[in-house]
Amino acid sequence: MTVQNLTPENLTEKVTNQDHYTPTPSLAALLDLTASDMGRINDLILQKAHSSVDMIPELASHLINSGGKRIRPMLTCATARLCNYEGLDHIPLATSIEFLHTATLLHDDVVDESDMRRGKKAARLLWGNQASVLVGDYLLGQSFKIMVSVGQLEPLKILSHASAVIAEGEVMQLVTAGNPQSSQEDYMAVVNAKTAALFVAASELGAVVANRPEQERQALKDFGHTLGILFQLIDDALDYHGDAEDLGKQVGDDFRDGKITLPVILAYKAGTNEEQKFWQRTLGQGDIQDNDLETALQLINKYKTIQITMEQARDYGQKAKTALQIFPTSVWKHALLDTVEFCIERGN
Amino acid sequence: MTVQNLTPENLTEKVTNQDHYTPTPSLAALLDLTASDMGRINDLILQKAHSSVDMIPELASHLINSGGKRIRPMLTCATARLCNYEGLDHIPLATSIEFLHTATLLHDDVVDESDMRRGKKAARLLWGNQASVLVGDYLLGQSFKIMVSVGQLEPLKILSHASAVIAEGEVMQLVTAGNPQSSQEDYMAVVNAKTAALFVAASELGAVVANRPEQERQALKDFGHTLGILFQLIDDALDYHGDAEDLGKQVGDDFRDGKITLPVILAYKAGTNEEQKFWQRTLGQGDIQDNDLETALQLINKYKTIQITMEQARDYGQKAKTALQIFPTSVWKHALLDTVEFCIERGN
Repeated sequence: MTVQNLTPENLTEKVTNQDHYTPTPSLAALLDLTASDMGRINDLILQKAHSSVDMIPELASHLINSGGKRIRPMLTCATARLCNYEGLDHIPLATSIEFLHTATLLHDDVVDESDMRRGKKAARLLWGNQASVLVGDYLLGQSFKIMVSVGQLEPLKILSHASAVIAEGEVMQLVTAGNPQSSQEDYMAVVNAKTAALFVAASELGAVVANRPEQERQALKDFGHTLGILFQLIDDALDYHGDAEDLGKQVGDDFRDGKITLPVILAYKAGTNEEQKFWQRTLGQGDIQDNDLETALQLINKYKTIQITMEQARDYGQKAKTALQIFPTSVWKHALLDTVEFCIERGN
Repeated sequence: MTVQNLTPENLTEKVTNQDHYTPTPSLAALLDLTASDMGRINDLILQKAHSSVDMIPELASHLINSGGKRIRPMLTCATARLCNYEGLDHIPLATSIEFLHTATLLHDDVVDESDMRRGKKAARLLWGNQASVLVGDYLLGQSFKIMVSVGQLEPLKILSHASAVIAEGEVMQLVTAGNPQSSQEDYMAVVNAKTAALFVAASELGAVVANRPEQERQALKDFGHTLGILFQLIDDALDYHGDAEDLGKQVGDDFRDGKITLPVILAYKAGTNEEQKFWQRTLGQGDIQDNDLETALQLINKYKTIQITMEQARDYGQKAKTALQIFPTSVWKHALLDTVEFCIERGN
């Protein structure tokens, strides 16, 4: 049976032929397997961040070279190779995903008035908010040019959709900011849009460039969706208990920004009248005093909402692994399963 | 001879067969001829500015319904019809151009800290800078989705290129801001990128949807390019002598923002040592006192730099009209010639 001739029958056969691989919480295999593709992507990133206006590559490089994990472009590489793709169209597409993500980070830092990003001073503090907005726009434009250069409409539909959904999610987050009474549903809508949408696009593109059948495409969308949600849940949990140095930002940033994340929503819901008033004053009215972060951490600890958030993340991790079941055993599949574990474990 | 069978010979014949139309400085013909197309575009704009996140259509409508002339989408309609195009692909493309432009305005107002736009309070004053950045991003994403929906790669190449060039021009303007010693070449580079690029794209798309030969495509690019430059030159002149009510912004906005435009560059170059020091203090160091705008206006008047700017604009207007010579006489051609005159005369 060749992989090129999949039928519903032999796909079913594959599902029953699951391997019993026990994933390791590590990015090592993914990094190793995608190394040569990521080398090409890094070259293209540098090339496309160039401009005769010096400020553009200077500002862009500050963020691009700041040691982000580049998990989104790696996902595109890994899913394409998982689908036995042997071409190179995934290189520009993965690059355009990283540009889209970088542009979002630049604008996010302006909107959140963030001081740190990936352990370095935020670009807006070095070049100003104005430059961050405009260089973000330039990177969006370049992202768009790169994906058009591939000359295929299907990836363009996926990526243009993602770019609108991400921005919609950012606005949604701005609107819900400062309302600790937000429901978990509102929170999940934000997470789906601002984070999971790009993970979906990054993963789906693997099946699309490889021209795989709908079932595999859907499986990779499900994989990206659940991995994206788990990624954000862990990020939000880490904001209240991570190590500032590892995190590249300060514990409590979300608290100071009035962001309503799951650990807070759960603590608010479980809280006493007095505690709810505390959340209303701090996150609701933005009246934050010296010891308030400590109190917030105590309440989050009291109701074990970090642990509950982690449990939910683990459930999504299980779904992400299940989504990969239809794919035959391969080093790529194992690397993606490891990645799921890694994303969960970084929260511990 | 049908328009569909153009050869170099009969194109030449047309050039020599120029009509002797004397254009009127009016948008009336353009508005009238494009009315039904613009009706479709307005419907699509409203439809695509929608989102379940209420803040998005609220903020977007504030700017969209604020009575902008929509000259860019009208250009796409008029150039498509000038090229005898009878389809409807120019409708979504023109819409995506207006979205791209609207997104740029939202971000511009944040960067320039503008208080007014088209005679109304700037969106950033009503919804905040954060929302203006993010809704701008949403409109960029929607712009991109709309153009992808047309399903043709050539317009996507044109528009993705334009979006990167515009952002590059905005960064260039930010970098040159505060340096009155900038050369006219630097200024023209900014104008080409931030304004003319979208006029080029808007006009070129007419020939592209109509599948016209390279010569016509180039002619419409030249037309858009020169009209775009003239449009910006007049805008920059008006900033120092327009009527605030007509302008929808205050006289002297560029002065207060430290923007280096042609009337200033020319006054600086012609100025005495003392006068150059004045420009350095005000525009260079941003140290602007109560009577400084008055002094700036006097210096601009002394060296007649508004008049020189207008003369340059008129030269570009001549080039724009010349670019249309290869097209046979039609109501569309006359409407576009009128548009050139209108753009020049609004400065008087």
